[in-house]
Amino acid sequence: MDARMRIEQSLARAIGVAQGRGGPPSLTAAMRSAVFPGGARIRPRLCLAVARACGDDNPSLAVAAAASIELLHCASLVHDDLPCFDDAATRRGRPSIHRAFGERIAVLTGDALIVLAFQALARAADSAPARLGNLVLIISRAVGAPHGIAAGQAWECEQTIALAPYQRAKTGALFAAATAAGASAAGYDGAAAWCLLGERIGEAYQIADDIRDVVSSEHEVGKPTGRDEALGRPNAVNQMGLGSAVERLEELVRSAIKVMPNCPGAEDLRAHILAEAGRLLPRQLARPAA
Amino acid sequence: MDARMRIEQSLARAIGVAQGRGGPPSLTAAMRSAVFPGGARIRPRLCLAVARACGDDNPSLAVAAAASIELLHCASLVHDDLPCFDDAATRRGRPSIHRAFGERIAVLTGDALIVLAFQALARAADSAPARLGNLVLIISRAVGAPHGIAAGQAWECEQTIALAPYQRAKTGALFAAATAAGASAAGYDGAAAWCLLGERIGEAYQIADDIRDVVSSEHEVGKPTGRDEALGRPNAVNQMGLGSAVERLEELVRSAIKVMPNCPGAEDLRAHILAEAGRLLPRQLARPAA
Repeated sequence: MDARMRIEQSLARAIGVAQGRGGPPSLTAAMRSAVFPGGARIRPRLCLAVARACGDDNPSLAVAAAASIELLHCASLVHDDLPCFDDAATRRGRPSIHRAFGERIAVLTGDALIVLAFQALARAADSAPARLGNLVLIISRAVGAPHGIAAGQAWECEQTIALAPYQRAKTGALFAAATAAGASAAGYDGAAAWCLLGERIGEAYQIADDIRDVVSSEHEVGKPTGRDEALGRPNAVNQMGLGSAVERLEELVRSAIKVMPNCPGAEDLRAHILAEAGRLLPRQLARPAA
Repeated sequence: MDARMRIEQSLARAIGVAQGRGGPPSLTAAMRSAVFPGGARIRPRLCLAVARACGDDNPSLAVAAAASIELLHCASLVHDDLPCFDDAATRRGRPSIHRAFGERIAVLTGDALIVLAFQALARAADSAPARLGNLVLIISRAVGAPHGIAAGQAWECEQTIALAPYQRAKTGALFAAATAAGASAAGYDGAAAWCLLGERIGEAYQIADDIRDVVSSEHEVGKPTGRDEALGRPNAVNQMGLGSAVERLEELVRSAIKVMPNCPGAEDLRAHILAEAGRLLPRQLARPAA
């Protein structure tokens, strides 16, 4: 079964557990809607690609770690779209969760997805309990304070934004967790060494997101564009110009590959990263990967 | 060191980790403010009392489980106070988090406290990794969907509230987790048997909270009162009258003690529960414990 399908199945299993019997219907419908249909699933696919490169001796734990990371990503999108943050009307081409289900259910959907991420991980760790602690630490650091997603979103509320920690927390941290968790789920000794690869890919992804925010239409990306300028948020294109932003993105992908730790499946992982990088840019800007 | 002080120290350690270096100042200040100074810490003290009754062979894991439960309780209060829910101006006699720090920081504070709860647990489980999975499952079920706190809050958004699952999810679930996690952290085999005790105590606590909402002043309880009637939420006093509500509370405490599983420290735990029950009612209604 290919990685994409394994991820969808793992997410569906987790959402099925949260749905259970006799739960409040709106909350479980909103949780499902926040996760399906998904986006590119770029983080969980990266997680699985690293696990595979590290031998993947426990595929069910690796896919649970991947799903956990995607659930946390989805949770952050739901809260980021709330009226008090971006007040986004659409996400992935459909009404945002608070538009479809109301603001209260949107807050609770984010909360319940965060909880579900850790629950899904714990359920899968039955087969390798000694790996659970490290996985929970890797993933929790990527989404909490002081350096995870919540911290990244909180930087937007400060009078002065420290740009590097803001971007690292808001985007880089979960990519770093995706690579480290993939290695850790596969029992790789010293999974922390994988963080740097994830951080570089996260930074490249952040620049690609900035580029799409400037050059793409809402129809193409399924969410409002031009938001960074409207909300006064830092954007690489506005800061360095489009050409330099594209160059910086390509440089980051090359340097990501350079910092990849030794592992049995290094060649396949390199190919995965280059193929993914080729999809980061809007079609009109895409160039063949180096 | 007494239980209360151990809990405060464990919470302070967790908040210290979340504060770290170089995090966004408002978020970490708000997280601290959501946790300190605390309320009665009734759930973590119950958790530690059960761990002690079960032999408490790993005190640092037990206190981490207790702190984790309190962090999740604090997170739920922050989100419950938000403008889209109760819109509470005060909590524990001080401005609520969204009044003091803004709505965005309040949403992120709840998120980051949920994450911190699992992180603190994982950090403490180094000494007994085989116990972590069960603890994460016990605690996550109590706060997520379909039967945890988020589900309880979501019932308030449904057209018709199913009363029993609503109250069990919103209040009972975390009390049940407090007893089960206390037993599980102490290595008690079959910790699920402890849930019933926690559920009964949680139900008694819910009735006490309903009574305070009707008969106490905002000054006495540190948060707005009369909210259930104002928000059209179910309240035991409004449903069965004050006298019957007090009787029901006392009956629940007696039945809680009856369902307590066998354990080495049963006598001390019974005394703890009776002493706590004596503090549940507002002073003007308190009667000597049976």
